[in-house]
Amino acid sequence: MKYPAGLKKDYNKAIKYDNRGMNLEEDINATNDFYLQNNIACIYKKPTPIGISKVDYKSRSDAIIKEAYFKIPSTTDYNGIYKGKYIDFEAKETTLTSFPLANIHKHQIKHLDTISKMGGIGFIIVRFMKYNETYILTNNKLQSFFSENNRKSIPYEYFLKNGYKIDLKYSPRLDYIKIIDLLMEGNENEE
Amino acid sequence: MKYPAGLKKDYNKAIKYDNRGMNLEEDINATNDFYLQNNIACIYKKPTPIGISKVDYKSRSDAIIKEAYFKIPSTTDYNGIYKGKYIDFEAKETTLTSFPLANIHKHQIKHLDTISKMGGIGFIIVRFMKYNETYILTNNKLQSFFSENNRKSIPYEYFLKNGYKIDLKYSPRLDYIKIIDLLMEGNENEE
Repeated sequence: MKYPAGLKKDYNKAIKYDNRGMNLEEDINATNDFYLQNNIACIYKKPTPIGISKVDYKSRSDAIIKEAYFKIPSTTDYNGIYKGKYIDFEAKETTLTSFPLANIHKHQIKHLDTISKMGGIGFIIVRFMKYNETYILTNNKLQSFFSENNRKSIPYEYFLKNGYKIDLKYSPRLDYIKIIDLLMEGNENEE
Repeated sequence: MKYPAGLKKDYNKAIKYDNRGMNLEEDINATNDFYLQNNIACIYKKPTPIGISKVDYKSRSDAIIKEAYFKIPSTTDYNGIYKGKYIDFEAKETTLTSFPLANIHKHQIKHLDTISKMGGIGFIIVRFMKYNETYILTNNKLQSFFSENNRKSIPYEYFLKNGYKIDLKYSPRLDYIKIIDLLMEGNENEE
């Protein structure tokens, strides 16, 4: 099928949106772009940590990495600033009806707790693909779960009861800053 | 020469310290470790952004990257939290008597300005290797330089007059948080 130049792309985008074809990372990145363009917040995904073992230096600006490996991240994937405050979170998707804790490293959970204790706003964003629903769970509620449970996954119901659902919209796609506003008002994550 | 176990390491460390053998990145990383261990601040260097073109998947956990390249960073190298506040900076060494602006990307300078405008604390740390001196220059002073000058480098004298010198100590090696305290008191970087 042929489309006039420019239209096809938008058409595909619309389909993608309707079908919820974007993954969580794409949704968050698009949302962060929107926040930055509109001077709302400045939040970035950190680069994937990579250990480099071999590099070919053709020229100074034209190095090619010939051997490297993925490293375990020391912190979470996303951080930045909103209303002067430090924001820090990890985002994960799951196809299951509970969120497997194997999906998040122990030192990442510890990192989020450090952030909270230092007066920052730390949380996780989890998307349950089966229900097409995305939740914020604050560090406080995450730590409560650990102190009250010894399970290897957090059930969907725990998110329903203790999390905040983020609705999917056209733009910004995943307006999680609204939830941060609620948290700031309630001082839920404050020292 | 033989040393009792454990001693040699410390001896070498002492020599290294006396000779100022650590580079700026090592000094900052060691300082950030100290801040984290002592619950003072949580500041990390971001991983180097890398674009991956070929990966060998031997097994799920054992992927080897076979071709990749260095990408231009979208933000600065370091960010984190201190006293609830968002901190953001870039760190560079120079062997010259002025700091070449080619050493820092234009979008990094714009990023620092965005951070300042959003109420965060943005700055650069520059080490003049010739003088063995390290300075903090706040985003405000950096932007002033651009509005008042059309030069391709910032002279050492500008740092002397407008920057804050960070003394090199044993531990923490480069106690830049002291300067941040000054900046917070003076609201120099506040909205």
